[in-house]
Amino acid sequence: MVSWLDVYNVFSATVPLYVSMILGYLSTKHLNLFSLEQCAGINKFIAKFSIPLLSFQVISQNNPFTMSLRLILSDILQKILAAVVLAVVIRFWHPTGGRGGKLGWIITGLSVTVFPNTLIIGIPILSAIDGDAAKNILVQIVVLQCLIWSNILLFLFEINATWDLQSSGASIEHRVNDNEETDIEQEPIEEEEAIVRTRSSGTGKILLKGWRKFIVNPNTYAAMIGLIWATLHFRLGWKLPEMIDKSIHLISDGGLGMAMFSLGLFMASQSSIIACGTKMTIITMILKFILGPALMIASAFCIRLRGTLFRVTILQATLPQGIVPFVFAKEYNVNPEIVSTGVIFGMLVFLPITLAYYFVLDL
Amino acid sequence: MVSWLDVYNVFSATVPLYVSMILGYLSTKHLNLFSLEQCAGINKFIAKFSIPLLSFQVISQNNPFTMSLRLILSDILQKILAAVVLAVVIRFWHPTGGRGGKLGWIITGLSVTVFPNTLIIGIPILSAIDGDAAKNILVQIVVLQCLIWSNILLFLFEINATWDLQSSGASIEHRVNDNEETDIEQEPIEEEEAIVRTRSSGTGKILLKGWRKFIVNPNTYAAMIGLIWATLHFRLGWKLPEMIDKSIHLISDGGLGMAMFSLGLFMASQSSIIACGTKMTIITMILKFILGPALMIASAFCIRLRGTLFRVTILQATLPQGIVPFVFAKEYNVNPEIVSTGVIFGMLVFLPITLAYYFVLDL
Repeated sequence: MVSWLDVYNVFSATVPLYVSMILGYLSTKHLNLFSLEQCAGINKFIAKFSIPLLSFQVISQNNPFTMSLRLILSDILQKILAAVVLAVVIRFWHPTGGRGGKLGWIITGLSVTVFPNTLIIGIPILSAIDGDAAKNILVQIVVLQCLIWSNILLFLFEINATWDLQSSGASIEHRVNDNEETDIEQEPIEEEEAIVRTRSSGTGKILLKGWRKFIVNPNTYAAMIGLIWATLHFRLGWKLPEMIDKSIHLISDGGLGMAMFSLGLFMASQSSIIACGTKMTIITMILKFILGPALMIASAFCIRLRGTLFRVTILQATLPQGIVPFVFAKEYNVNPEIVSTGVIFGMLVFLPITLAYYFVLDL
Repeated sequence: MVSWLDVYNVFSATVPLYVSMILGYLSTKHLNLFSLEQCAGINKFIAKFSIPLLSFQVISQNNPFTMSLRLILSDILQKILAAVVLAVVIRFWHPTGGRGGKLGWIITGLSVTVFPNTLIIGIPILSAIDGDAAKNILVQIVVLQCLIWSNILLFLFEINATWDLQSSGASIEHRVNDNEETDIEQEPIEEEEAIVRTRSSGTGKILLKGWRKFIVNPNTYAAMIGLIWATLHFRLGWKLPEMIDKSIHLISDGGLGMAMFSLGLFMASQSSIIACGTKMTIITMILKFILGPALMIASAFCIRLRGTLFRVTILQATLPQGIVPFVFAKEYNVNPEIVSTGVIFGMLVFLPITLAYYFVLDL
């Protein structure tokens, strides 16, 4: 039975996150404390230092030899199911507007449906319910996200960009004129790059490009080194020298608060919290809070997850959408306004939904 | 007897601070990761959010009813002695160059001599030697710094600015032409302000101006609210609600690492680590590492401090110079290059000096 203490714990874990986020939002939106360039500086610090070190710290404490194979399999199955469902839907219903063709829409659908914010939102909030057991499960999901899913997503974006250019070919200029909303200054550069890209396309090149992005992403590094270190630590008993451990903590300790602050800065920088319109917002929320968890429930049943593992796996699927897919969507300009709505609106409404799932799962 | 373990503890507390600082330095100086404006954003976040919340957190945990009267008295006595010594020296020897007249030089001397970086450097490093006992003593010194000394310093800067203008009067334009090193673009604004200032001078106005700076300084607020809360907590047993406590921690936890990172950014933004020249650097280091601790020893003897209280009070006087005086010196343009050298060069050389004092005090 869910106790009021559980609910209180969840709130007391959530409120500080929102306080940080609201501080970030107000400091830019109303106090004009930070210019856009200054926000970019804070975001860069978080993306290049705080979050990678936080990932390292979390992942290096996870024992890779006790990872649950069932959990990994259900996580993989959920992603495959989501890809199949989205592909079928897009086969028969192609949303109007947006860039990137059918693959683009599948990518956007996947970003919204199966990429919850496990590291920043999930660990503090779900740990408030199930303690270390939840943390242990979530860390495993973070490992999979950092090492596998973000990189597959990145490859999909690259493939989509290349396909898009191959199919549209010479019609690029035409589309530039049509699409009035896109940033005019950035377009010429993109166009040039596009012609570079069209010539050098091919699977090998795509893989090479994906690889290049992969190796400059500090978070991938952090996750990989974290996993290697965890292997050495839990197999051979190696310990991180105190000075290195403290150095990492000194910067990563602020990671959580800074990341939420930065999410607030990001919200303040958007023109609207539902930038993609009401209809698309409703679809996004259905994908996020119904399809995503439903597919996770289906996968968890198939793989026969039980108890805490079952509950936490479902609950993490109800968390608001992660920020990494938004960064990619913006970079490749594939429906960024939908993915940003997924992040912001999701963040504002997820708590009662997650708690509702929690109550239902407890029956 | 000082053990090797003590020395190891000090190093293990210091290395992480330097790692953060070096990351900040390298990220700007060599990697060009942050533009000047982006650094300003990071610094603003630290100055307006991280550090004030860190001050609050530290001060609110200090029991004001067990503050040591002897400690407070020796701290006050050291400041008075320093002011007297510097006034006597400046009476007979007026350094060439620089702005701000004799009072300006006294202010610079005080900044270098009696404003150690107790919050950021002192607490982690000296806690490594004497544990909670040291922390408890240092927090009391932080309270005095935040609530009394920074504000007195601010008043002195205001008085100096007004005196300076009254005495120079119409010769401002003349000096602008002489002083080629000053920023040309900023001069016209300063000149205008100067004429504003000359008209409205007088003690009342100075106090009003000081008061205005005082009430917009978030760190003063944080220290004051922290002290009030500590009074309520330790007298009436009030407890901070968990959500508020966690919200503060979420942002302040990163304060230390961020502050060191920001110090690194600051170092990278300076043209040289000894911007004021070799001779003045030597004088600065003598003031910082010989005069400051010597005056503290004299005061501690007068007030008869004993044991840990004596040792920690002396050791904190050997810490590198704090950042607040530099912020003021830059704002009022009173020998900022000397005060910046005090911060940077002091940070690079203080550790063996502090350890040497520690060994000697232990004999």
